[in-house]
Amino acid sequence: MKAAQLYAYDKEMNVDLKIETVPDPVISDPGDVIVRVGAAGLCRTDLHIIEGVWRDVMDVDGALLPYTMGHENAGWVEEVGTGVKSVKPGDAVICHPLRSCGICAGCRRGEDMYCEDSIFPGLSTDGGFAEYFLTNERALIKLNENVLPVNVAPMADAGITAYRVAKRAAKILSPGSYCVVLGVGGLGHIALQCLHELCGTRTVAVDQSEAARKLAKDLGAHHVLDGGPDVVEELKELTGGGAHAVIDFVGELGAEQLCWQMLRQGGTHFVVGYGGTIEVPTVHMIINEIAIVGSLVGNYTELVELMELNAEGRVNMRAQEYSLDDINAAITDFKNRQIVGRGVIVP
Amino acid sequence: MKAAQLYAYDKEMNVDLKIETVPDPVISDPGDVIVRVGAAGLCRTDLHIIEGVWRDVMDVDGALLPYTMGHENAGWVEEVGTGVKSVKPGDAVICHPLRSCGICAGCRRGEDMYCEDSIFPGLSTDGGFAEYFLTNERALIKLNENVLPVNVAPMADAGITAYRVAKRAAKILSPGSYCVVLGVGGLGHIALQCLHELCGTRTVAVDQSEAARKLAKDLGAHHVLDGGPDVVEELKELTGGGAHAVIDFVGELGAEQLCWQMLRQGGTHFVVGYGGTIEVPTVHMIINEIAIVGSLVGNYTELVELMELNAEGRVNMRAQEYSLDDINAAITDFKNRQIVGRGVIVP
Amino acid sequence: MKAAQLYAYDKEMNVDLKIETVPDPVISDPGDVIVRVGAAGLCRTDLHIIEGVWRDVMDVDGALLPYTMGHENAGWVEEVGTGVKSVKPGDAVICHPLRSCGICAGCRRGEDMYCEDSIFPGLSTDGGFAEYFLTNERALIKLNENVLPVNVAPMADAGITAYRVAKRAAKILSPGSYCVVLGVGGLGHIALQCLHELCGTRTVAVDQSEAARKLAKDLGAHHVLDGGPDVVEELKELTGGGAHAVIDFVGELGAEQLCWQMLRQGGTHFVVGYGGTIEVPTVHMIINEIAIVGSLVGNYTELVELMELNAEGRVNMRAQEYSLDDINAAITDFKNRQIVGRGVIVP
Amino acid sequence: MKAAQLYAYDKEMNVDLKIETVPDPVISDPGDVIVRVGAAGLCRTDLHIIEGVWRDVMDVDGALLPYTMGHENAGWVEEVGTGVKSVKPGDAVICHPLRSCGICAGCRRGEDMYCEDSIFPGLSTDGGFAEYFLTNERALIKLNENVLPVNVAPMADAGITAYRVAKRAAKILSPGSYCVVLGVGGLGHIALQCLHELCGTRTVAVDQSEAARKLAKDLGAHHVLDGGPDVVEELKELTGGGAHAVIDFVGELGAEQLCWQMLRQGGTHFVVGYGGTIEVPTVHMIINEIAIVGSLVGNYTELVELMELNAEGRVNMRAQEYSLDDINAAITDFKNRQIVGRGVIVP
Repeated sequence: MKAAQLYAYDKEMNVDLKIETVPDPVISDPGDVIVRVGAAGLCRTDLHIIEGVWRDVMDVDGALLPYTMGHENAGWVEEVGTGVKSVKPGDAVICHPLRSCGICAGCRRGEDMYCEDSIFPGLSTDGGFAEYFLTNERALIKLNENVLPVNVAPMADAGITAYRVAKRAAKILSPGSYCVVLGVGGLGHIALQCLHELCGTRTVAVDQSEAARKLAKDLGAHHVLDGGPDVVEELKELTGGGAHAVIDFVGELGAEQLCWQMLRQGGTHFVVGYGGTIEVPTVHMIINEIAIVGSLVGNYTELVELMELNAEGRVNMRAQEYSLDDINAAITDFKNRQIVGRGVIVP
Repeated sequence: MKAAQLYAYDKEMNVDLKIETVPDPVISDPGDVIVRVGAAGLCRTDLHIIEGVWRDVMDVDGALLPYTMGHENAGWVEEVGTGVKSVKPGDAVICHPLRSCGICAGCRRGEDMYCEDSIFPGLSTDGGFAEYFLTNERALIKLNENVLPVNVAPMADAGITAYRVAKRAAKILSPGSYCVVLGVGGLGHIALQCLHELCGTRTVAVDQSEAARKLAKDLGAHHVLDGGPDVVEELKELTGGGAHAVIDFVGELGAEQLCWQMLRQGGTHFVVGYGGTIEVPTVHMIINEIAIVGSLVGNYTELVELMELNAEGRVNMRAQEYSLDDINAAITDFKNRQIVGRGVIVP
Repeated sequence: MKAAQLYAYDKEMNVDLKIETVPDPVISDPGDVIVRVGAAGLCRTDLHIIEGVWRDVMDVDGALLPYTMGHENAGWVEEVGTGVKSVKPGDAVICHPLRSCGICAGCRRGEDMYCEDSIFPGLSTDGGFAEYFLTNERALIKLNENVLPVNVAPMADAGITAYRVAKRAAKILSPGSYCVVLGVGGLGHIALQCLHELCGTRTVAVDQSEAARKLAKDLGAHHVLDGGPDVVEELKELTGGGAHAVIDFVGELGAEQLCWQMLRQGGTHFVVGYGGTIEVPTVHMIINEIAIVGSLVGNYTELVELMELNAEGRVNMRAQEYSLDDINAAITDFKNRQIVGRGVIVP
Repeated sequence: MKAAQLYAYDKEMNVDLKIETVPDPVISDPGDVIVRVGAAGLCRTDLHIIEGVWRDVMDVDGALLPYTMGHENAGWVEEVGTGVKSVKPGDAVICHPLRSCGICAGCRRGEDMYCEDSIFPGLSTDGGFAEYFLTNERALIKLNENVLPVNVAPMADAGITAYRVAKRAAKILSPGSYCVVLGVGGLGHIALQCLHELCGTRTVAVDQSEAARKLAKDLGAHHVLDGGPDVVEELKELTGGGAHAVIDFVGELGAEQLCWQMLRQGGTHFVVGYGGTIEVPTVHMIINEIAIVGSLVGNYTELVELMELNAEGRVNMRAQEYSLDDINAAITDFKNRQIVGRGVIVP
């Protein structure tokens, strides 16, 4: 089959993926499933992989390359192992990013991301920038009728990450409250839609890009700010004292320091984007009784719930398609911030 | 001032209120507030008071009559006691139905309905079917700008009752779930709107009245059923096994027995309407691990939250106005189910 | 191997199990595990099976008999399927009662009892009143060092059922509150210990048996009542208005009607025992804002947590041992209420 | 009456309080209550007041001095305002530290520390290092029979601060989990006892003082560490990967940086002590999905609950008594860490 493979890490990202013919994946475990890739989302993590950021974590013994990236996958079941009961060839599916074990304490609590024996296709082994892709039964969610893989692939990672944090925020957000969404990109524009569906808060979208602010308005954000130097003061005035929650999809370049300052007493700063370091005086945390909370991708049940909202037309992904042969163009556009919403590779 | 007073109980409700001139209420406590009534909602409980249903609870020593009903009140602050700080004459306000003490364990937890030392104007003492009305500072919520008392008075009781139960249900309702609203009247039509704002569930409105079903559709109910003899089976088929929550605004005439049968495993039946008796086999409760949960009016904070949703145009009360002089006509129309939404008395 | 088999249902329970030589269980699925039975608890459900109560549910086509009961099992791993990673032969284990699938929505949320594709050894297929017993990897929890199967087998069903409901109750029980444990038998005596470990409530044990009341006192129940005709009034006086939670391990013979009457405003009646029918006026549910909540066995994670408490010596099962050959004597003793704590069969 | 008054701030704390005769407090509001002080706890915040740390917050216009400190008060009701109903002269009481308004949004939710119109006796106005002390009805909790003010005064601040954070931690701590209590001083030794009462976690007490470690052992801490340079590694080994919660009662001198490193995936670091600054990489927060959460004193209901645990002998304050005339000796002992448990002034 055809696959786009990475042959070398490069900090400057001056490296093209090569479109090669590689062996088809093979079923070896009763729970294995081979998926014919319908679409695979392009994620900022893919850029970080090329840069070598994940080398020490995912490629410890240096034997990973060449390999196929792609961890936001949807398609059709092609072949199933002998133990698979819940899907059959031909079923349209979206793939939770992890192949979890189903046995460990994390899996037993329903928290797939805490799996102690997981495989992460597209990071630690071959992923979905290819015609076929190997995962397992536990990763698969059947798509609702009339939903096409190409329209939902990035929901598999960008989508659930936004959904999980929005759901956690929604639990503490009552009508009359304010929730800041900092960064209205691939994740933020999903989080906005999820917040509107999951609770009665007022959303305040903050982004320095005019296109992103326009998108936020189109999606019904109650307030939109441009993230200028006075954003904390503007936010405090707008909200009469600060936000009840701030979701930070940036996590670097100073954003991580503004977020907790935007909170009112009792507020929560959710950290999703990363790169920077938060420095917060303990006395500030106590007097204001604030919380700073990391949020990590999402579990299988959360992806099921998101797909329900999507099937009902309540939450939609904005995306731009590229063929597998054009994957290097997609990566270049992504680096140059030329993609509206999410880039999607269609083999 | 003018007030509509009840002089006698009558099981057949063949009794008119009398429009009388009575002394104006007087401030006697530092926390007292006199409200000029802008509007007062007419509630089914008012019919029950006339029937004498509440006689043994509210009029134990038989000294209550004649008195003024009306427990869903909104208006403008007329006069305040010496200790009142948060409102001043002229402020437009809605009144939480209870004058709570602020000292007991219930009040300290924020659960005003659990107040051990409360007064209930319109039930246990004079209420709002009058030009003026005595309550206390703790009962008052200032209306948002551009909100008129006449448009919100029934929110004070019908509204928060629907809001509280919808909020409790929303906590257990994820996207992809189903919530039945049984009875789309004064409370049910508010609950539907609240559910749509507070969570991503799919609502199933059930009502035998065609007008109510039309209202449910207008309000965006995802499914509408007519509550015929096969309603449990229809609901199970529609939902693929049963609802995750059922909110019963009827509570009598057999509805109370259908509700828990509509649940899927793990579901919750919320009881708001009353009159009937629930009979449920313990083995059914265990095998299906269901819950049956009473819900009582709502607390001050819940009314604040509801008023925020209302001020933003997200939740609106359908109402029909009557002058104070026409209150007996309003009562007759209510008895004959001629009122669309809620009847409101405007002095 | 030797197994105690049921050959006929009998409403009067005048039927002996037969000790037979039957074929050893065989691994057929990669996730299968054969356990050498160390001990198997005798449960009231076993009596109900003999009576034929479960015939319509578990033996629909009448082909189940003869078969081996026993659903509270602990022992040592004898043999594992090719896919099993988390246990190996020789490991001491306790068995969650269900073989759950790990794929369905219930399993994915961590709620094993909601599994849509489960097998229930000892009910729907051969169980643990035998030398060996077939289950799967997902059902197994390794015992902590120094814990013997014979000391914990009944934790597998009686134990987690008590633990789950105690944990649910503990969530709503603050210091200063009262929790009634109605019925201090095999489940109740575990629930008492769990409540003492999981929250700061005051426990009120109610049982008509003097031995049970003595056991409750030994286990540290804060108050003990004899469940006489005035128990509701006694309880209300003792608690200054009613309990915050009542856990009913009886569920029949009138107990089910007393429990919700013991509650104060806002209280919760947990239903665990079954047989009777609850009849409760809706008006009572609303004015008192009470909840009536079924509770069903427990999930895998809950059994893990209980086993931690047990390994630390905080929660212990009182039991009486019988050899497999003496199983009919054990059943007779159980019927005649001659067993202190739980009866345990040791092959 | 006699009162110990502060006349000057001094960064070096070389300043004695003066025992003076000052006018008795006077009732001016219907909700006012004068308490005859039975005992008043000495808090680290008192040292900070003398140092001038709170000058900019509490003494903005520089008119506060001379005044009477003391914010951990218990005693007997001496005189009540005309509106007071729940206490009467002679009642033994403990005083919540804040005089809250009962009207604002914070009070209405039961969160007294969020009161927007509060008075803080002992900080912003005269407190309890005196024979009498002015507070209001909302601050008072009647002591259970047989409980003496002198035995509980520090519960009013040190106690509820420890209780609130322990209760928050208990909600996320299941049996088998580990909770670190960092700092076993006036607050930490209460938190340990509360954790043992409120949940089934295993506690790990960490303190560099041998006396504190001995106290921790006496109080039943499951593990005790000496907080040496390898404490993070020791903790991770002991717990098999990290703690589920860490409660930091130090908050400075580097402790604030160790705490979040002690957590396992999904863990929570509660911040109570203060002074230092937390610096945490966002990537660490996300990959480990940890939370860092401030906790502030406690609300009225929490103090009620703590007093129940105390009255039942489950949670006790270790204290050392001083007469009002010896208050400067008490302060000196406190500065020199010569006090075991909490210092208490007895007028």
